[in-house]
Amino acid sequence: MISFAGGLPPPEAFDIEGIRLAVDGVLSRGRTEGLQYGLTRGTGPLLDAIAQLMNKRGIACEPADLLVTTGSQQAIALVSETVLNPGDIVAVERPTYPAMIDVARLRQAVVMTAGSDREGIDVEELESRTRAAHPRLLYLVPTFGNPSGAVLSRERRLRILELAVRHDFLILEDDPYSELYFDEPAPPPLAALARDVPGARARCAYCSSFSKILAPGFRLGWLWAPPEVTRAASIIKQVQDAHTSTFSQLAAAAYLESNRLGAHLPRLRALYRTRAKAMSAAMESRLRGSLTYAPPRGGMFIWARLDQRIDPTGLFLAACERGVAFVPGAAFMAEQPDARTLRLSYASPDAAQIDEGMARLAAALKGASSC
Amino acid sequence: MISFAGGLPPPEAFDIEGIRLAVDGVLSRGRTEGLQYGLTRGTGPLLDAIAQLMNKRGIACEPADLLVTTGSQQAIALVSETVLNPGDIVAVERPTYPAMIDVARLRQAVVMTAGSDREGIDVEELESRTRAAHPRLLYLVPTFGNPSGAVLSRERRLRILELAVRHDFLILEDDPYSELYFDEPAPPPLAALARDVPGARARCAYCSSFSKILAPGFRLGWLWAPPEVTRAASIIKQVQDAHTSTFSQLAAAAYLESNRLGAHLPRLRALYRTRAKAMSAAMESRLRGSLTYAPPRGGMFIWARLDQRIDPTGLFLAACERGVAFVPGAAFMAEQPDARTLRLSYASPDAAQIDEGMARLAAALKGASSC
Repeated sequence: MISFAGGLPPPEAFDIEGIRLAVDGVLSRGRTEGLQYGLTRGTGPLLDAIAQLMNKRGIACEPADLLVTTGSQQAIALVSETVLNPGDIVAVERPTYPAMIDVARLRQAVVMTAGSDREGIDVEELESRTRAAHPRLLYLVPTFGNPSGAVLSRERRLRILELAVRHDFLILEDDPYSELYFDEPAPPPLAALARDVPGARARCAYCSSFSKILAPGFRLGWLWAPPEVTRAASIIKQVQDAHTSTFSQLAAAAYLESNRLGAHLPRLRALYRTRAKAMSAAMESRLRGSLTYAPPRGGMFIWARLDQRIDPTGLFLAACERGVAFVPGAAFMAEQPDARTLRLSYASPDAAQIDEGMARLAAALKGASSC
Repeated sequence: MISFAGGLPPPEAFDIEGIRLAVDGVLSRGRTEGLQYGLTRGTGPLLDAIAQLMNKRGIACEPADLLVTTGSQQAIALVSETVLNPGDIVAVERPTYPAMIDVARLRQAVVMTAGSDREGIDVEELESRTRAAHPRLLYLVPTFGNPSGAVLSRERRLRILELAVRHDFLILEDDPYSELYFDEPAPPPLAALARDVPGARARCAYCSSFSKILAPGFRLGWLWAPPEVTRAASIIKQVQDAHTSTFSQLAAAAYLESNRLGAHLPRLRALYRTRAKAMSAAMESRLRGSLTYAPPRGGMFIWARLDQRIDPTGLFLAACERGVAFVPGAAFMAEQPDARTLRLSYASPDAAQIDEGMARLAAALKGASSC
């Protein structure tokens, strides 16, 4: 089975030697802090390292402004528990990362969508729906979005910040992919641009993760939000799991202190750029005329739309039978599901597998019944 | 400051060499599973190892019956999210582990208490209050309780199982300390005894942790519960944090596979037994006639009650001024707080520190104003 379905870093994406050194360091010279309980907010060395990373991303940040979470997933869940009451409205992109849809449902919140294109969420649609429905939270993956691959333009980022101030909602910016640009970085995070928009800082929450740049297995993410949100999220986290693994935190801190990330990120960018180009090339050669997509500028995903109507379940099953998997795009849409869409990840397979997978997909497409 | 306040394992309680070997094993021979995403339920090797541990504790268990959690704290929170609705009643011991009180409050549940003695929770009081108030959940730390140090007798365990069947509530048995017995093991867990009480299996949830027998820093616990509870808890966990650190899980699994736990546990028992005896001796020599307590048979805590009325805040501050800390017992009581009680942990300080700490506590007691 060739999988375009997951968003898993392949083994080649891990700096195994660097991670081994970092892990060894946690237990070196009889140190036991990594084995001990810690504070809910996070361990000092990791908070320091994350604050540095945040400042590099343009977000003015002190260690005390942060909360270390068990992946950015937990940051999303905690912000939602903090700000959402049953019946509240959460605005998301269409398509969006489905974890936010699940979290919203767990909170008995109502999901409202606005469409998106290559420049990210459609601000006109967001504004008109916001006027009608007053969301409390806007969730965005603005940079190399999952699943869209899109990059929200700088202009739209600024307009969304203004919208948040005008309509008093909180923006939760989920940013796991921004370091994975191919040729040039995306515009700064909304949380960085907020300093140019009066009143916007108090409407910005930002979460990110080490899953895509270091290793998902450590389950490390973080939250930076208005102080009262971070404080409330910390109290909930304390009740829910006390704190995130001290061992994982100190291993990541040791890795960041070793200054290997600076050398590792260019390797990661090259790896995913090569695979993204291989996927675009394979789609051109194998599937030209069958679907529409835009080549990504970073991240892990190509979002595609079939040019003809196809029974999506039929196509999915036919593809699986031929040994290639993808995620049907309707899974990412809380409203108006578009059955012609699919998410294709190039993260796991190599170039040869990508080409073979696209050949299989083309065969599945020929075999699947139109509807 | 000598601390009798925490329940932290001291550095001597860690099998550092064994843990280092286990951690090394996770990344040996180019293995990367420990760096990768995993399933919400837990990684196979750890689930296998926990199932073995559970069977040794008398609980018939397959790996598929388990959910790996971020400490037993998360198991408590997830069970509560699964079974408690706002306004539901949770029965707990008086005194109880306060995390359960916090979790209940987060769920907007109502906490109801029954007193306890050296044999654990008072079953008569529990029964009469249950008849009146119909709790949905009973939370217990039945073995070397935190903070009571008490061991629920076998007879009471069986009566509570019958009570759960008769009144249709779920028992959540929190069992982090049962391996830390001093001379002989406590009676089997309620979850094990349930096989002798018709209908009881479906009323038993059990959680435990590696924090007290391996290392808190890995943040690893687990839940075994009726299948529908485990399933619902897994779905909530998936939304809240996807899964617990794969690296931590595989490190713990490697440690358990190395068969070092069998040699480590007797060392741990001897360590805490020595400290518990040192604390009892110091209380006899320094505080005789000032307070009442029962020497513990395992675990990490002595629960004591002052013979005279003392302003608890005054005593706490006077003790801190003299360089000794404890936890005022009222913190563990959701109802009828008894200001004369205190929790004293012997886990962290060594014998000499324990004696010095008790001398300081005696001095603080002399200095504190009666009321």
